[in-house]
Amino acid sequence: MAVYTEIDDDALIDFIAGYDIGEVLSCKGIAEGIENSNFIVTTTTGPYILTLYEKRVRIEDLPFFLGLMDHAAAHGIPCPVPLRTTAGETLRELADRPAAVVSFLAGMWPRRPTAEHCREVGEALARFHLAADGFQMRRENALGPTAWRELIEASGDGADEVKPGLAASLSGTLDSLLADWPDELPTGVIHADLFPDNVFFRSEHLSGLIDFYFACNDILAYDIAVCLNAWCFEPDLSFNVTKARRLLRGYQGVRPLARAEIEAMPLLAQGAAMRFLVTRLYDWLHTPEDAFVTPKDPVEYIKRLEFHQGVRGPESYGID
Amino acid sequence: MAVYTEIDDDALIDFIAGYDIGEVLSCKGIAEGIENSNFIVTTTTGPYILTLYEKRVRIEDLPFFLGLMDHAAAHGIPCPVPLRTTAGETLRELADRPAAVVSFLAGMWPRRPTAEHCREVGEALARFHLAADGFQMRRENALGPTAWRELIEASGDGADEVKPGLAASLSGTLDSLLADWPDELPTGVIHADLFPDNVFFRSEHLSGLIDFYFACNDILAYDIAVCLNAWCFEPDLSFNVTKARRLLRGYQGVRPLARAEIEAMPLLAQGAAMRFLVTRLYDWLHTPEDAFVTPKDPVEYIKRLEFHQGVRGPESYGID
Repeated sequence: MAVYTEIDDDALIDFIAGYDIGEVLSCKGIAEGIENSNFIVTTTTGPYILTLYEKRVRIEDLPFFLGLMDHAAAHGIPCPVPLRTTAGETLRELADRPAAVVSFLAGMWPRRPTAEHCREVGEALARFHLAADGFQMRRENALGPTAWRELIEASGDGADEVKPGLAASLSGTLDSLLADWPDELPTGVIHADLFPDNVFFRSEHLSGLIDFYFACNDILAYDIAVCLNAWCFEPDLSFNVTKARRLLRGYQGVRPLARAEIEAMPLLAQGAAMRFLVTRLYDWLHTPEDAFVTPKDPVEYIKRLEFHQGVRGPESYGID
Repeated sequence: MAVYTEIDDDALIDFIAGYDIGEVLSCKGIAEGIENSNFIVTTTTGPYILTLYEKRVRIEDLPFFLGLMDHAAAHGIPCPVPLRTTAGETLRELADRPAAVVSFLAGMWPRRPTAEHCREVGEALARFHLAADGFQMRRENALGPTAWRELIEASGDGADEVKPGLAASLSGTLDSLLADWPDELPTGVIHADLFPDNVFFRSEHLSGLIDFYFACNDILAYDIAVCLNAWCFEPDLSFNVTKARRLLRGYQGVRPLARAEIEAMPLLAQGAAMRFLVTRLYDWLHTPEDAFVTPKDPVEYIKRLEFHQGVRGPESYGID
């Protein structure tokens, strides 16, 4: 949860007047997203989402994120569409911060994902990869393998407070991961953070993908590996191969994977676990005690990483 | 801000199905209220507010609060109306907590209240006092004078950390306040917490009163004294007598004050400053550092209290 910035009511009314969406009826900070301040703004024409970009987001990345949502929505992906002012702008300023208004998506994220949810997520992810194919802007993955090393080093001895020996073990795992990290798999724009709270369902069907603020250019199959980590472990951290099989089948029904992508899945899944492990570890050790946001426990990603290190091969993910 | 409880999507759909308000489209935790968890639930018939009552609210008080909103709304007060299920219930249970759905009010609370806002607040407060006159349930003021003594004692030496000598000075002030505290002024149901963030305006006119969770039976003019503290001090804590005059005129245009109520205003205003001073002091000293809610600084109420102790008489509040 996070609402960091207070918006002056008069300033908001002036801001919304720039769009052709009617009169402001209310504005309420919502507990959604952890990097930015988000609000539901209800006007006489309906609800909208207003986002103020806080300092963890780089301003120079915003045209990529907003442009990507615009492109994806235009190509049939159910994602928020950035609204344009009557002057044609999507990226503006409010309360001294970069700001944008996007369309409101119906649906709720699934607290207890089922195998059928996983199938629809796989399918939607593949559709997104295809839809984003014609998007012309580029953004490097700021949380790719190079960053993992930096985050481990920045965590320093603190890692061993989380689990004795963790610093050395992570460093060793990362060495072998990077030695084998694939460099010839198909790349494109990936979501890079498609966790259950970023996917809405309505009447049991997928109705929206949100939060494109980690999207970047990277290995497409790595995006699937993120989803395997995010969707296919049970609350007790056991791996549910049925969910993985459905997720991968859903994906391949839209975009069949090449043999090399399938073979790389155990390694990519280790990498995805490493990515969330090291950012959580860093936040765990660096979040001030009085912060609004409670950092997430990194330990569950140690367990996910260990699972992926122990798999026999792609068949452990239910790939036929 | 506060959202404490996570709601399962399936449980919410079942819960909302109990009302005749259509299909759930979305549910988002909002940063509103500090005692409870609040959500905007959007259905195919529009937005609603869902509240889960957390442990700071006593369950046995909920029928009073919900009944009061129902009664006030039926008597023309623009306040949230508790929805009834098809079986006629307003107080239910969700996520192991007492829960209620109320109507959604348009409007935003004024970040920079003007004298005209104050006039409308005074008028609305008087209308609420008259509307609540026929309400049959009773609730004692759990944060009345008796509680002030307990809160000062519970703060103990901590008060002197906030300001040296504060504990003794508060105790002395309270002694003289209680010795003179009026016991023959008109009483009735008061809101008891009508701060700017509990009053919505739309197009410069008052459109809603919210958050009745401190409402109780007490001296009616004490409710005005709360508003003098809440609405008539500038950010630099200087007292704006123009705002006070407009607030009191707005009130008296609907419910003229008796001479005794006017004479008591300086004392009631001291009491109201004391009430917010001691609860803020207590929260300041007792809120864990890792809590979601940042406690409010009690020091600004020391300054308000000092102002009220120094006034010449009711004329200092602009009462003609």
